[in-house]
Amino acid sequence: MSKRINDDTSNQGLLIVISGPSGVGKGTLCKILLNRVENLFLSISATTRPPRVGEVDGRNYIFMSPEVFEEKIQKGEFLEWARVYNNYYGTPKDKVFQMLREGKDVVLEIDIQGAAQVKKNYPEGIFIFISPPNFDELKKRIIKRGKDSKDSIELRMKCAADEMKAALDYDYIVLNDDLNQAALCLQSIILAERCRISRNMELLKKLREEWANDESVHRLTY
Amino acid sequence: MSKRINDDTSNQGLLIVISGPSGVGKGTLCKILLNRVENLFLSISATTRPPRVGEVDGRNYIFMSPEVFEEKIQKGEFLEWARVYNNYYGTPKDKVFQMLREGKDVVLEIDIQGAAQVKKNYPEGIFIFISPPNFDELKKRIIKRGKDSKDSIELRMKCAADEMKAALDYDYIVLNDDLNQAALCLQSIILAERCRISRNMELLKKLREEWANDESVHRLTY
Repeated sequence: MSKRINDDTSNQGLLIVISGPSGVGKGTLCKILLNRVENLFLSISATTRPPRVGEVDGRNYIFMSPEVFEEKIQKGEFLEWARVYNNYYGTPKDKVFQMLREGKDVVLEIDIQGAAQVKKNYPEGIFIFISPPNFDELKKRIIKRGKDSKDSIELRMKCAADEMKAALDYDYIVLNDDLNQAALCLQSIILAERCRISRNMELLKKLREEWANDESVHRLTY
Repeated sequence: MSKRINDDTSNQGLLIVISGPSGVGKGTLCKILLNRVENLFLSISATTRPPRVGEVDGRNYIFMSPEVFEEKIQKGEFLEWARVYNNYYGTPKDKVFQMLREGKDVVLEIDIQGAAQVKKNYPEGIFIFISPPNFDELKKRIIKRGKDSKDSIELRMKCAADEMKAALDYDYIVLNDDLNQAALCLQSIILAERCRISRNMELLKKLREEWANDESVHRLTY
């Protein structure tokens, strides 16, 4: 915890990284969270895949050419990135950092590998691991998605087992057993983090100045 | 953050220390909090002052003789203690630690000086500073209590100014502007702290064992 009054990051927004094994329900939880908590914004990913019908540049994704994307990788301009089949996906630093500077809290909903990259690039983030309540439940969810072959499901399950180990690198774990309860936990983590002393240096400074400047203590009439 | 799987404190309850300047509304907030959050218990103070009509030993206070109290001070058996006029008040370690061992989360509602003692004796606690929204509001509240002389009120205001400096030693600050909002913040801090990875080592261990032992990944039929 920083104790400097003129802490530069005191007025910055929080970067909240929400991750967990594939199929755990990150997306649903993030949607509920963004509806419930004020001053919370979802980070928009960049991608090289072409826009689908109805997708708007800058809203659904930031669309860019492979050349531009690769140049940005070289320059270290992503918080995290990955190549999935023939397309790149990533989180551009500039957009996220701009929002943080404006005091906005930003949510990143990403996979475990992406979260590990963010942790390296921005360790000040709040890292939340969404966990399935148990093994069987995750299996059900992965199968229910139904869009994967048997091989792919088995691979996903094995990955999920590996991914559970990553939880130790996170700050918080939220069990997605009951959706409402899990959303309440996420909301609580964000509200609590906003109450941290280190995030409220400006407020404390203001309060202490009020105290120091007030002379009415010496002329109380009542 | 501890990363040991066999962390001894992983199953222990949380010690939540709620403090702030005199007149800030700690007591009201704690009552709301205890009604709202499950598995949360208020620590009971020991005192040498005689019981008032209706007060029950072990419920309102743990009543003890000055001799016993002083012996316990000598033996270091208080988390914090103070002498107020001719009476002692304090928080016995044994009761609090027993509840923590049972996995119960314990709330201590104490003044700034007491909280500083607890911080020395139990730095693993969660320290929450309740702040008045501004100077004028605290002044109003102290005057409204009406039971103090003018001198005493001026002294209280000066103390409050000093006490604001202590906020830097806390983990969280909660502004008691709107009572409901402040209670929500307190509740959120407790729920969030319960989600910390370091408090959920047993859960993680269990989940990972389930994963490791499950062979159904290799015989999925769907």
